[in-house]
Amino acid sequence: MKPDDAQLLELSGRRAAGIARTRRSQDARVLPAELGLEGRLMRRLLGSLGDPPLRVTLWNGESIFTGRGNAVAGIRIADRSALLKLFINPELYFGEAYGDGSIEVDGDLVKLLEVACRGMEHASFSGTLRHLVKSLDRPRSNALSAARDNIHHHYDLGNEFYRLWLDREMLYTCAYFPTPDVSLEQAQVAKMDHVCRKLRLRPGDAVVEAGCGWGALALHMATRYGAQVRAFNISREQIAYARARARAMGVGQRVEFMEDDYRNISGRYDAFVSVGMLEHVGRDHYGELGRVIDRCLPRNGRGILHSIGQDQPALLNAWIEKRIFPGAYPPTLREMLAILEPQELSVLDVENLRLHYALTLEHWLRRFEDARERVSEMYDERFVRTWRLYLAGSLAAFNTGNLQLFQVLFARAGSNDMPWTRAHLYGQWR
Amino acid sequence: MKPDDAQLLELSGRRAAGIARTRRSQDARVLPAELGLEGRLMRRLLGSLGDPPLRVTLWNGESIFTGRGNAVAGIRIADRSALLKLFINPELYFGEAYGDGSIEVDGDLVKLLEVACRGMEHASFSGTLRHLVKSLDRPRSNALSAARDNIHHHYDLGNEFYRLWLDREMLYTCAYFPTPDVSLEQAQVAKMDHVCRKLRLRPGDAVVEAGCGWGALALHMATRYGAQVRAFNISREQIAYARARARAMGVGQRVEFMEDDYRNISGRYDAFVSVGMLEHVGRDHYGELGRVIDRCLPRNGRGILHSIGQDQPALLNAWIEKRIFPGAYPPTLREMLAILEPQELSVLDVENLRLHYALTLEHWLRRFEDARERVSEMYDERFVRTWRLYLAGSLAAFNTGNLQLFQVLFARAGSNDMPWTRAHLYGQWR
Repeated sequence: MKPDDAQLLELSGRRAAGIARTRRSQDARVLPAELGLEGRLMRRLLGSLGDPPLRVTLWNGESIFTGRGNAVAGIRIADRSALLKLFINPELYFGEAYGDGSIEVDGDLVKLLEVACRGMEHASFSGTLRHLVKSLDRPRSNALSAARDNIHHHYDLGNEFYRLWLDREMLYTCAYFPTPDVSLEQAQVAKMDHVCRKLRLRPGDAVVEAGCGWGALALHMATRYGAQVRAFNISREQIAYARARARAMGVGQRVEFMEDDYRNISGRYDAFVSVGMLEHVGRDHYGELGRVIDRCLPRNGRGILHSIGQDQPALLNAWIEKRIFPGAYPPTLREMLAILEPQELSVLDVENLRLHYALTLEHWLRRFEDARERVSEMYDERFVRTWRLYLAGSLAAFNTGNLQLFQVLFARAGSNDMPWTRAHLYGQWR
Repeated sequence: MKPDDAQLLELSGRRAAGIARTRRSQDARVLPAELGLEGRLMRRLLGSLGDPPLRVTLWNGESIFTGRGNAVAGIRIADRSALLKLFINPELYFGEAYGDGSIEVDGDLVKLLEVACRGMEHASFSGTLRHLVKSLDRPRSNALSAARDNIHHHYDLGNEFYRLWLDREMLYTCAYFPTPDVSLEQAQVAKMDHVCRKLRLRPGDAVVEAGCGWGALALHMATRYGAQVRAFNISREQIAYARARARAMGVGQRVEFMEDDYRNISGRYDAFVSVGMLEHVGRDHYGELGRVIDRCLPRNGRGILHSIGQDQPALLNAWIEKRIFPGAYPPTLREMLAILEPQELSVLDVENLRLHYALTLEHWLRRFEDARERVSEMYDERFVRTWRLYLAGSLAAFNTGNLQLFQVLFARAGSNDMPWTRAHLYGQWR
């Protein structure tokens, strides 16, 4: 080994160096001494991710293997520019390069993203730079008009597109699988029942829903539980779809779909429900949301907040925030409680459904791939690749614990109108 | 009505005045115009609590009725000094005066305290003064040596005393009643099983318990679940009792009772358990507790924190902190999460068992009253009255929602070794 190689290895950190030495006898190709500058740069990037079991091939034919055991997937990098961008901000540019095809993945995309997710948690390298970027950066504004733009960006892509890979009821939130083998359709109905049972909905209850998607839960609460529902959403396409369904089902009298922001909710309701909207609210607006909940709940009122979350505060993956969910932020449970604590509300139950979201995403990704040809007819190749990566990346994030799913049930402080145990959620009334 | 009476009524606030006028035709005795200065002072104090349905009789024979409907209880105040102290700081001096007998209660003590608890939430009067006192005051220190004094104060009163009114296993924490009609003994065993099931204890699991009381849970985990337990407590009497039980049961090899502070926990364990200790830790030490949990849990580790809590941050009732639990503080759920969030830990499940603690206290209070004669032989009258008020006051606080009981289950971030749903807690394994 030449002295300058030894220095480079020193630079790459002891961990990478250790692995490189171990591998020397096994595979001559991976010897850092034989890699060019770009190969060594890639080597270092992988080292900073804890040497995940991957195979990376560069445009010049150089291959870098890392990790112990077989590679879970291979990555082909098409040019120097893609590599350098990856080095500067892997979180953002991996997605960008995958989207435009300058990065190609061979093998299991989800497994690749899982080892990357696990590596990111312990990333030693470029961490300072990334944290700096993260601390300077902020999610986009969710003030009233900006919120409309942000929501339009994602949810008004066309109902046709979502229909290709969501369940029959068009639920675009974490399902609840009583057992892992039930179908996605069953699990989405089970999720709606889980929410309604937690809220102990009774015939005649007035319910307000903040962020109602295509209206499935609102319609379910009205038709299966006899509730009187007013549901809010600022996505025009979703509201139009929901209204059409309500008319077709003949329940227009019992479900009112409002194309309006949650901040404009007025009136009093027995229950407040929000499933999968909080991610779009933004931390700056949690106080407002708390005041909305407070003013609409009477003495025996109760509510549920269902949201993607995190164990520790961190901005959403930069690429997802840019390409998929502008303005989105997944709160920690502690941040979610900042909505409720200042009001006279009491937390009754919190359930983390992280693995249920991973399984939901497995279903969505499979259906998306099955519908790939149809999606390709509707959108360009970049769109297809971007969405595949987003679904696969989200699945990896829930599987590895980078994302959580919190269901928080609360009630008016001091109200004793609550079930004695949680057994009623599991088929036994106590 | 003379002009100065009208001014006094004006001073006492519109609410009290309104009620006084309503009652005028019903009962001439309660006319503020007929009360002396002390009676009007008492009237005002009750008005500030939202005019609870109470009857107060002063040493001079004056009676004040408030609220609509029948009084739930009567209060007799023996002298002017007791009244004035009550006016200055009702939270502290009600207990002091009840303890020394200068306040006597006729009728249902718990109901009286419940209406007072509800009134305190909306107290308009002396609120500024009380908040000032609260913000200046702090619970006593829980640094290592102070913690020993604080714990000794309460838990080393003598095992004989606690044996008179606790369950057979001597559990001095919230029980879990699968149905409200099971006995206290059954409910305490059910609580231990609820905790062990949440932790999914398996034979051979190493468990560390922080704050083990008289050792019942540690012994239960070892004998019923085959766990290897190390349990910490700084109460000398409790540890001696627990060690004697372990010897008598022949499980000294599997349960180790350490007379030591949780901050001195070392080693690695599959599970961390703490039931009813956090109340004594103090907010200043939550970071330390989090680091203790972090250093003792491996990759698949999990843990439970079970603690009395509150919906919003507020100091513990001043009298309880002074007479019963020096240094104690019941955290909000959000404050509890400050222990876990900075560590690589993920919240899986939170359950609020507030009404279970109310029912536990109902059992304790009944047993305490049944054992009153025996307690009187062991301690003086002030002790008996102080403990009765503490048990009744705690019952009232849980019933009205002034206190909560949070069970927080957590695991290492990213560990997928968790049950698919919570159905296994309710008699069904999934």
